[in-house]
Amino acid sequence: MAKALVQGASRGLGLQFCRHILERSPSAAVVATCRNPEEATQLKLLKSSYPNNLRILQIDVTREDHVQLAAASVKDDLGSLDLLINSAGILHPSKRGETSLKDVTAHGLEATFRTNTLGPMIMAKYFSPLLLKGQGAFGLTDRDKPHKGIIVNISAKVGSITDNGLGGWYSYRLSKTALNMATKNLSIELGRGKNKVICVSFHPGTVDSDLSRPYHKGVPEGKLFSVEHSVNLLMNNINNLKLENSGQFLNWDGTQLPY
Amino acid sequence: MAKALVQGASRGLGLQFCRHILERSPSAAVVATCRNPEEATQLKLLKSSYPNNLRILQIDVTREDHVQLAAASVKDDLGSLDLLINSAGILHPSKRGETSLKDVTAHGLEATFRTNTLGPMIMAKYFSPLLLKGQGAFGLTDRDKPHKGIIVNISAKVGSITDNGLGGWYSYRLSKTALNMATKNLSIELGRGKNKVICVSFHPGTVDSDLSRPYHKGVPEGKLFSVEHSVNLLMNNINNLKLENSGQFLNWDGTQLPY
Ligand SMILES: NC(=O)c1ccc[n+]([C@@H]2O[C@H](COP(=O)([O-])OP(=O)(O)OC[C@H]3O[C@@H](n4cnc5c(N)ncnc54)[C@H](OP(=O)(O)O)[C@@H]3O)[C@@H](O)[C@H]2O)c1
Ligand SMILES: NC(=O)c1ccc[n+]([C@@H]2O[C@H](COP(=O)([O-])OP(=O)(O)OC[C@H]3O[C@@H](n4cnc5c(N)ncnc54)[C@H](OP(=O)(O)O)[C@@H]3O)[C@@H](O)[C@H]2O)c1
Repeated sequence: MAKALVQGASRGLGLQFCRHILERSPSAAVVATCRNPEEATQLKLLKSSYPNNLRILQIDVTREDHVQLAAASVKDDLGSLDLLINSAGILHPSKRGETSLKDVTAHGLEATFRTNTLGPMIMAKYFSPLLLKGQGAFGLTDRDKPHKGIIVNISAKVGSITDNGLGGWYSYRLSKTALNMATKNLSIELGRGKNKVICVSFHPGTVDSDLSRPYHKGVPEGKLFSVEHSVNLLMNNINNLKLENSGQFLNWDGTQLPY
Repeated sequence: MAKALVQGASRGLGLQFCRHILERSPSAAVVATCRNPEEATQLKLLKSSYPNNLRILQIDVTREDHVQLAAASVKDDLGSLDLLINSAGILHPSKRGETSLKDVTAHGLEATFRTNTLGPMIMAKYFSPLLLKGQGAFGLTDRDKPHKGIIVNISAKVGSITDNGLGGWYSYRLSKTALNMATKNLSIELGRGKNKVICVSFHPGTVDSDLSRPYHKGVPEGKLFSVEHSVNLLMNNINNLKLENSGQFLNWDGTQLPY
């Protein structure tokens, strides 16, 4: 039985990851976490279609106490995990990336870092013990270099320092760059022991969601992915991951992005 | 008259940057900022040797109100700046980098990000207007591509994702990686207009200071720089900066480090 946890699952890519896994794996156990389960209408609808396979738990990823409680509950309930997807993210508390320095505030930098970077780190802290006990149900099984679990951090291409040609979006860019370092650092620690967890960052493409909505006008024809298309591509990549990919920053097409 | 501001100037590299500039440039105006001017004994001693050239102002770099007030005061007093050095930094609020995930806390990640990343960003926000009016007193004068001012972010080699082979030190690594993105992003915005500011990140070497003290035993013979030696090297590099270096992550020997 494949066991996956997706955080930031109330909307957008996170919700679609849950739906994708449930539709394709009739025996999968999916834990969907979000900060306001009561208000997560679409997630509750999904639960009504998969009452036995889907569990919904509350996690505001900026709250270490939430993460710790949820990890204890998943441990009791499932005992292990094969996949953790850190999907929750914000562009900026104002929902608009900074166009220039004058828009930058301590509050904006901090709030964006807390959701986009600190959240995935704290998730990794409390859920890595469960992932280290996984069955390797996601990713390619490699007899010589087996893995137990996978951590996927949903990053963004604008977090690439090398690729940065336009500037702006300070809070978001800084948080995603730091997230890519988190992925690399986690890949080292969780690749060291006998039991190993693959850790990767993915750029999901430019995806039609609430987060990107204010910027859709600027997206060239055919370049705006639906959440379904992006998740199809990402899950295909995830199913092909091997230990040698651990630490990488990967594009939706499976190619490596520069840091 | 060369005008420089150094934040995090109570101790370590920041203090030495002030001393270095004052000793070599008899007419320089140096603004040294620190969070507790009253307790900055060594800085006050330096002030007694250079009463006319050195100004001390209070900035806790995590406080946007401090930064804003100090910028207004420097504007009234000096009208412009040629060099801003963001030196303040912490390894972790506990003074020890995390050796593994179990040491990682939301508080540690956040506090380290606030000092090491948010601090330099907020400094850039309020002081870039003064740097854009600088006289290019630091760096190489290039008639074809002149610059007005320079921002130096003191980063660390452990902030390189590419170079990361050991893991650990989560809070510090993430904050310095994000700082390198800040440098790149600032170089784009402040390199766009008619007046330009060069922005670089530097790794100062492994330096004998309070920050690195708990780790000196592990440093190979001859590899631990004195603050004087590190600042000599860095100021030599700063005096050779050109606009084409803007955005780079540079080692103490002037070579580029990978992101
Ligand atoms: N869309 C794109 O073009 C694009 C491109 C590159 C990368 N990404 C990344 O993809 C990921 C998913 O984004 P999306 O496009 O699906 O955006 P979205 O539709 O706006 O969804 C964002 C999700 O994050 C959740 N969230 C925000 N703060 C949270 C917190 N503190 N605790 C728990 N959950 C929180 C939201 O929950 P609530 O419903 O409670 O607000 C929501 O479920 C993000 O990391 C984003 O940076 C997206
Ligand atoms: N030493 C090394 O081996 C090494 C290696 C790589 C990079 N670096 C970087 O070099 C820079 C300077 O470090 P250092 O070695 O000189 O360390 P240090 O001797 O420990 O000095 C750190 C300085 O930062 C100041 N500071 C800390 N938090 C502050 C805040 N919120 N507001 C204002 N000032 C604050 C401290 O002021 P207080 O006196 O008020 O505490 C102190 O002046 C740091 O960015 C560090 O990361 C150092």
